[in-house]
Amino acid sequence: MSLKEIGEFGFIDKISRGCLIRPEGVVTAIGDDAAAFHGKAEQLLLVTTDLLVERVHFLRQATSGFNLGYKALAVNFSDIAAMGGNAREAFVSIGIPDDCPLEFLEDLYRGMQHLASEFTVNILGGDTTGSKQDLIINVVVTGMADPSELLLRSGAQVGDIICSTGCLGDSRAGLHLILNTIGIDSPELRALFDAHVLPKPCLQEGRLLAASGCVHAAIDVSDGLSSDLGHIMQASGVGARLVAKQMPISPHLQVFCSRFGFDPIEFALAGGEDYTLLCSVERKQFGRITEEYRKAFDRPLYPIGEITDTGRMELVETDSRLRDITPAGWDHFKRK
Amino acid sequence: MSLKEIGEFGFIDKISRGCLIRPEGVVTAIGDDAAAFHGKAEQLLLVTTDLLVERVHFLRQATSGFNLGYKALAVNFSDIAAMGGNAREAFVSIGIPDDCPLEFLEDLYRGMQHLASEFTVNILGGDTTGSKQDLIINVVVTGMADPSELLLRSGAQVGDIICSTGCLGDSRAGLHLILNTIGIDSPELRALFDAHVLPKPCLQEGRLLAASGCVHAAIDVSDGLSSDLGHIMQASGVGARLVAKQMPISPHLQVFCSRFGFDPIEFALAGGEDYTLLCSVERKQFGRITEEYRKAFDRPLYPIGEITDTGRMELVETDSRLRDITPAGWDHFKRK
Repeated sequence: MSLKEIGEFGFIDKISRGCLIRPEGVVTAIGDDAAAFHGKAEQLLLVTTDLLVERVHFLRQATSGFNLGYKALAVNFSDIAAMGGNAREAFVSIGIPDDCPLEFLEDLYRGMQHLASEFTVNILGGDTTGSKQDLIINVVVTGMADPSELLLRSGAQVGDIICSTGCLGDSRAGLHLILNTIGIDSPELRALFDAHVLPKPCLQEGRLLAASGCVHAAIDVSDGLSSDLGHIMQASGVGARLVAKQMPISPHLQVFCSRFGFDPIEFALAGGEDYTLLCSVERKQFGRITEEYRKAFDRPLYPIGEITDTGRMELVETDSRLRDITPAGWDHFKRK
Repeated sequence: MSLKEIGEFGFIDKISRGCLIRPEGVVTAIGDDAAAFHGKAEQLLLVTTDLLVERVHFLRQATSGFNLGYKALAVNFSDIAAMGGNAREAFVSIGIPDDCPLEFLEDLYRGMQHLASEFTVNILGGDTTGSKQDLIINVVVTGMADPSELLLRSGAQVGDIICSTGCLGDSRAGLHLILNTIGIDSPELRALFDAHVLPKPCLQEGRLLAASGCVHAAIDVSDGLSSDLGHIMQASGVGARLVAKQMPISPHLQVFCSRFGFDPIEFALAGGEDYTLLCSVERKQFGRITEEYRKAFDRPLYPIGEITDTGRMELVETDSRLRDITPAGWDHFKRK
C-alpha cells in the first residue's frame, strides 16, 4: 500500500492509533487545528505546528525571505485562532541548504519577527541544521485558551449559521498570479498577491467568537472552504448547505475573474489558504454576534450557509438550483 | 557573509536578537537545551524541537524506520532530561518524498510509539506533508519541571565535580561501523551499534539529579563531550579540567578501539550523540548524590573532572601531563 492510495488523512488516521498514551488532561489531540491540554491551572495550553518544504510549499526564487517567514508563522497563528486561543510562543526549526544566502535567512526571520511583534508572541527557540537541497522550515506555536471557550471542529448543530470572517478565494487568485508570473499591474492584483503571501491571522476575531459563547464549531480555511467545511461536517456528524449568492467575494477577485475568465465561486469554494475562520454560529444568537463583530472590527461576519441534517454538502447556486458538492481542497498525497 | 563564515552558533546568536518580545514568565529561551516558561501554575512548561533531514542526519537505506523514529524522539527526550524535567507530549512533523514506502513510515511511527510508551509520553499531533527528495522529520516535545529544580547550563561553580551519567564514545564507534559498512560480528559491536541508533534518554537520571538540589548545571551530550562542556563553560563563565583516566570508556569501546586502531579518549571527547547527561555537581554533596544515584540505577555516576576558574578547557592526560583542548563537536555549517 502506498501513501498515494490512502491519502493524507488516511495516513494520519493510521498513525494516530496508539499515539494517545496518557489521555488524562488532554482535551483534543490529532484531528483538530491544534492540540489542547492542561498547562496552566486555569488555562489550556495549545500547540500547533506546520512544516514548509521548498519546491512543495514555496519556490525560493519566487518569494522574498520576509514573506516566507511571515507566512510560516501566520499559518500557525491561524490554527491557534481557530481554537479561540491566544498565541504565546513560537519555535522555529530550519534546514538550510548550502546555496541559501544568509541575507535571505535574515530576511526570513525579519518576516517572522514582524508578525510576532504584531501579536506579542515570543520566538523562544528551535533547531538550526543543514539540508542537502531544499530549504525546510518547521514552526511550532503554543497558545492558551480558556477551557470553557475552546472552539473545536466537532460542535456544529443543525440550524447553525455558517460564517466566514473574511473574503474567500483571494489567496488562490494571488497564487495564480505567482505561478503564471503575471505582472502586478493594478491595485486589485496587488491585493490578491498580498492575500496569498501575507495572510492576516484572525486571532482577535477568534477570541471574539470564542468569548461570545454561541460559536459551536470553528476551523481556519487553509485547504479550501469546501474541504475545511467537510472537516467540520465529519467531526460534528452534520451536513451543510452553502449559498453561492452569499459567498464573500472581494471586488479584487471579481476584477481578476472577469479579466482572466474564472468563476469566483469556484475560487471561493476550492481555493485554499484564505486563513479566514469558518465557524458555525447558534442561529438565535446570530444577530447579536454579527453586531458585536462589526462593532469590534468595522467589517461584517459573513453568513454563507447553514448546518443541515442531510450529511451532504450542498450549494444553492446563483440560479437557485441545489447541487451536491464534494470537498475539493489540498491533499498532499492524493493530488497529482 | 555566509553561514559557513559565522557558523551555527553565530547564526543562532544573530537571529535570536529581538525574538524575546514578552519576557515575563520566561525562565530561559534560546541558548539552553529547551525553553522554559510558565504554563501550569506551579510547574514550568518545557518545549524542545529537533529537525532531522535525510542525507544530513541519516541515510534512509542505512536505517530502519523503527530506529529512525525511536531516535528522533529520543534526542528530544534527552533535551527535556537535561533540564531536569518530565517529558509530556510530542508533536511530529514529517515531510515525505514520493519514493518513501508506507511500510517504512509505519515502522518509523512504531519506533516513536515504542519509546513514547516507555516514558508515558503522548504523540499529540503534528503536520504531514510532501517533500521533493528528502525525508524530513521534525519532533517537538513538551515537558514540565519544578521551577526550583530546573537544570540550566549556566550554574556551574568553580570546584564542582563534572559528571557523566553514562559511558562516552560508544555512539561514535557505532556510527563508524555504519559509515564503513562493517559487519556486526560480535556482542561488543552490537552494543556500539545500538548505542548509536537506539540511545536511551536519561529522563529518570535527570529527575534524580534535579531533585537532589546539588546539581548546578547540566547538558546532554549531543555534539560531543568537549563541545557540550564548552557550552556549560560559556554559559557559566568558568573553565574545566577533564581527567583522561577517569573517562568512562565501555569495555565494548575498548575492544573496538584495539581492533580498529583508535584512541578511546578521543572518541569520548569528540564523539557526540551519546545522550548521557553531563552535569556539574556541588563538591560537598558529591558523595551523597553518587550514593543515591547508584541506589536508584545500580550504576555509577561517573566523575570525569572539575570546574575551574581558568576559563580554559584542559585535559589531564593518562601520563599526567596537562594539555589545553578545544571543543570539537558538530557544527552544521562550520564543518565541511
